Amino acid sequence: MKRIIVAVLAVLVLLPIVVTHSQTNEKTIAERLGYPRDAKLLIVHADDLGMAHSVNAATIKAFETGLVNSGSIMVPCPWLSEIAAYARSNPQADLGLHLTLTSEWTGFRWGPVMPKDRVKSLLDKDGYFYLLETEAASHADPKEVELEITAQIEKARALGIQPTHLDSHMGTLYQNKELFEVFLRVARNNKLPVRIAKSWFARADFLPATLKADDVYIDRILDINPTVTPNDWAKFYSEAIKNLEPGVTEVVIHLAYDDGEMRGATFNHPDWGAAWRQRDFDYFTSDAFRKVLQENQIKLITWRELGKLIK
Amino acid sequence: MKRIIVAVLAVLVLLPIVVTHSQTNEKTIAERLGYPRDAKLLIVHADDLGMAHSVNAATIKAFETGLVNSGSIMVPCPWLSEIAAYARSNPQADLGLHLTLTSEWTGFRWGPVMPKDRVKSLLDKDGYFYLLETEAASHADPKEVELEITAQIEKARALGIQPTHLDSHMGTLYQNKELFEVFLRVARNNKLPVRIAKSWFARADFLPATLKADDVYIDRILDINPTVTPNDWAKFYSEAIKNLEPGVTEVVIHLAYDDGEMRGATFNHPDWGAAWRQRDFDYFTSDAFRKVLQENQIKLITWRELGKLIK
Repeated sequence: MKRIIVAVLAVLVLLPIVVTHSQTNEKTIAERLGYPRDAKLLIVHADDLGMAHSVNAATIKAFETGLVNSGSIMVPCPWLSEIAAYARSNPQADLGLHLTLTSEWTGFRWGPVMPKDRVKSLLDKDGYFYLLETEAASHADPKEVELEITAQIEKARALGIQPTHLDSHMGTLYQNKELFEVFLRVARNNKLPVRIAKSWFARADFLPATLKADDVYIDRILDINPTVTPNDWAKFYSEAIKNLEPGVTEVVIHLAYDDGEMRGATFNHPDWGAAWRQRDFDYFTSDAFRKVLQENQIKLITWRELGKLIK
Repeated sequence: MKRIIVAVLAVLVLLPIVVTHSQTNEKTIAERLGYPRDAKLLIVHADDLGMAHSVNAATIKAFETGLVNSGSIMVPCPWLSEIAAYARSNPQADLGLHLTLTSEWTGFRWGPVMPKDRVKSLLDKDGYFYLLETEAASHADPKEVELEITAQIEKARALGIQPTHLDSHMGTLYQNKELFEVFLRVARNNKLPVRIAKSWFARADFLPATLKADDVYIDRILDINPTVTPNDWAKFYSEAIKNLEPGVTEVVIHLAYDDGEMRGATFNHPDWGAAWRQRDFDYFTSDAFRKVLQENQIKLITWRELGKLIK
């Protein structure tokens, strides 16, 4: 009896210590990558490659500066072949797939990689993907989503793109639990990391509920929004980077030139429009951005490194 | 007997007169349109609408001058919706369909309106239309061609385009008799005139062999070619228009701006490239062109007028 009491007491006394020890000892994503726990790690990620020539040209130019170091490709879009040629010539580039289930510019549209009659739930009355992520998510049959995103991955590989990661154009695949489960299943099958941030968990509880211990995800996403005025563009980014918390952050940006093609595509949509993308290009290829990275000891990392953590 | 001899003699004497009379009395296409036999009638026709924003923007600008008065739309291309909106707002515009079975720019591609698995013979290994018209024609199953071009017409109509005529991007549908027969059958079913010129008959004898008496076709096509140097561009067109023969001529032109998008698309193909299209735009919106039309009593007509001849 005495032994039992001692044992129970020991458990009661030791339990908080063990739990605390376990919590503090759980490796952060930074530590799993081999960096110190307080390292500030940043992925500078350009979305929407393949959408338009202007996007491809500006993003490739930005890659050449070394300051933008990752991007993702929209397989269904008309300029895929141009960026696929770049991927074949630059196999070290950190290029993922921006899985696409929306076609958001009213004058400039695209549709699925799958035959249209196999993925009818993904298409609007004109045979294109829906304009909005909410429309896409509310109509989408998860089986057809799985077919289509799998086809996008297969087509990318057939064109010589070796994707290092996956994300979802306009966030369609994060719109509800069913779609997110499809997304995660396809990503796990392909052993590819997915754009998932701990900072999203509070607003979508199906995210942590769906993840497993060995899934790889980052700490937070940083992105600009339409409340920032053009004059405050550089200030917004520089301040955010100065204040970066330790861990892995992905800054999600949209690069293109403010040219005829992008103005034509985005004529009725200044948010994420031609001038917006030119501002992103100007900041992320600037000396000001280079300086703020250096002064704040921020280390650029890629999804390729994160992908190596996947067993 | 005497009566019979008189009758036979009368036939023999009258026969050449009747035949000659019949030949000279056969109405020319100009006369069928209500113009004098010696009228010089011209359609100024911009191809490739819907392909790119640059093409749409330059062609719409040229339409506004009144000097370019007809064009045709590529239904499978990414910028279809933009030109469809123009067509809906400008129902008087003479817009036809540039039926499309090729996707010729290596970095910028498109594919069918039909589900891909229904028109496999039209697709290259990447799931796009073939780059070349000769490849397209040699692989194409005529039944699948009929499905696809019918789908292109239906999709155009569903988007509010009321096509006035049909032609064939890169001439794929004129590559052999089988394809041409499909093309004509679909055009007749839709009661639409087709770009066919008498001046082509010598080099493709299946053309006249396939046509019927009540088909509507024009006298000749005028188009520039890569042997003309940029410096001689305006001279070539002005001379050709000064020397225009009576009847109906269509000058087939390719308008776009020499901008990032068109340079991106045509980077490895100066023929029909960005600078080529800018030169066409510059000439066909110029005072020099307006003057040469006026000085040579050339009357602009449209396919809409030609279409009214179809019963």
